[in-house]
Amino acid sequence: MNDIYQMMSTLRAVRRLRSDPIPDDVLDRVLQAAAWAPTGGNMQPWRVVVVRSAERKQALADVYRPAWYSYAKGYDARIEALPSEEAEKARRNRIAGDYLADHIQEAPVILMFVADPKMMAITDAKLDRISMVGGGSVYTAIQNAMLAARTEGLGCVLTTLHCLAEDEVKAALQIPEGWATLGMVPLGYPIGKGHGPISRQPASILAYDDVFGAVWR
Amino acid sequence: MNDIYQMMSTLRAVRRLRSDPIPDDVLDRVLQAAAWAPTGGNMQPWRVVVVRSAERKQALADVYRPAWYSYAKGYDARIEALPSEEAEKARRNRIAGDYLADHIQEAPVILMFVADPKMMAITDAKLDRISMVGGGSVYTAIQNAMLAARTEGLGCVLTTLHCLAEDEVKAALQIPEGWATLGMVPLGYPIGKGHGPISRQPASILAYDDVFGAVWR
Repeated sequence: MNDIYQMMSTLRAVRRLRSDPIPDDVLDRVLQAAAWAPTGGNMQPWRVVVVRSAERKQALADVYRPAWYSYAKGYDARIEALPSEEAEKARRNRIAGDYLADHIQEAPVILMFVADPKMMAITDAKLDRISMVGGGSVYTAIQNAMLAARTEGLGCVLTTLHCLAEDEVKAALQIPEGWATLGMVPLGYPIGKGHGPISRQPASILAYDDVFGAVWR
Repeated sequence: MNDIYQMMSTLRAVRRLRSDPIPDDVLDRVLQAAAWAPTGGNMQPWRVVVVRSAERKQALADVYRPAWYSYAKGYDARIEALPSEEAEKARRNRIAGDYLADHIQEAPVILMFVADPKMMAITDAKLDRISMVGGGSVYTAIQNAMLAARTEGLGCVLTTLHCLAEDEVKAALQIPEGWATLGMVPLGYPIGKGHGPISRQPASILAYDDVFGAVWR
């Protein structure tokens, strides 16, 4: 019934969420799914703040809305460069994104995933490129949570735009110094049909055979 | 049959892998699962090199083995500070880790996930802390691949220790300049019983109620 491949292949970004509450047992299953995820050295260096009060959801909305509209300007520029069918899809996503930015505080729950880099061995910290490996012990958990949300019939979407005003987010949720915010996931039952088909490049494009660039199969 | 919660709750690190080949259809399902994962702006900024040749698996082993034994020194120091039951478990993990380091080239497949930061909007790049958000469009895919591996009866484990010698990894797999290596996942059928119960802190410890630090339920 909860076939894992079906869940993965229909986990799309759902940006129109009803304000109806999420039953405790449903929410607990989503959080438990996150807790099962593997982390480096099994340190579980992340925590998730389950934001449900109107006041704090509004504080997150006040950060998210301007961040979205600022990001969307660059998005619009990219749309113009796309082939017409893709451009149409991108315009629909822009409208859905605007909806989320205007209504995110109405979601019954906003998950804020935070992590303490001092609990991680960040192996690419000293390389001559931007570090990304710290996310390896957090986004595994976020993906589990989103797959569980989809399994429970909840809509959700992962955004990191709140990082553009991380200090405000940390102040609103009393996140201590030294902790970082890695992912914001509004959760709620979908207004429309919610999850369904997704547009992705297939594995045949994303996988390479033995060396980078070598066509897979 | 492939119940998603059962897969998540039994996805443990499997470090002893048989050298038996992985059938094409099984491997393709693992790669397709990765391809379904959400990414920022649906950009899918990652690729995966499916390493199967003896020569290139050996090149990765030559990077991984010294990185593991170097990392393990710090791990041993931490073990001594643990309560005795946990210390016992940690010592077993150390032995399994040594096994992987000595035999990783025998795995039929090693997945190397790479990504191009130029294809990402890394929202925490300018913050006064180490950046971690770039991983958000890659580890979602890696988690999908590992869940699929577990579903297919394959053992696997995610490691980032290869980053300690990223230049050598990139040379061996012909990874272009500008691309980063984010995760190495050896894949193969387990020598022992493979996946099974996992030790994790529960959601009641990892989740907070509305503000950081507030006990959940």
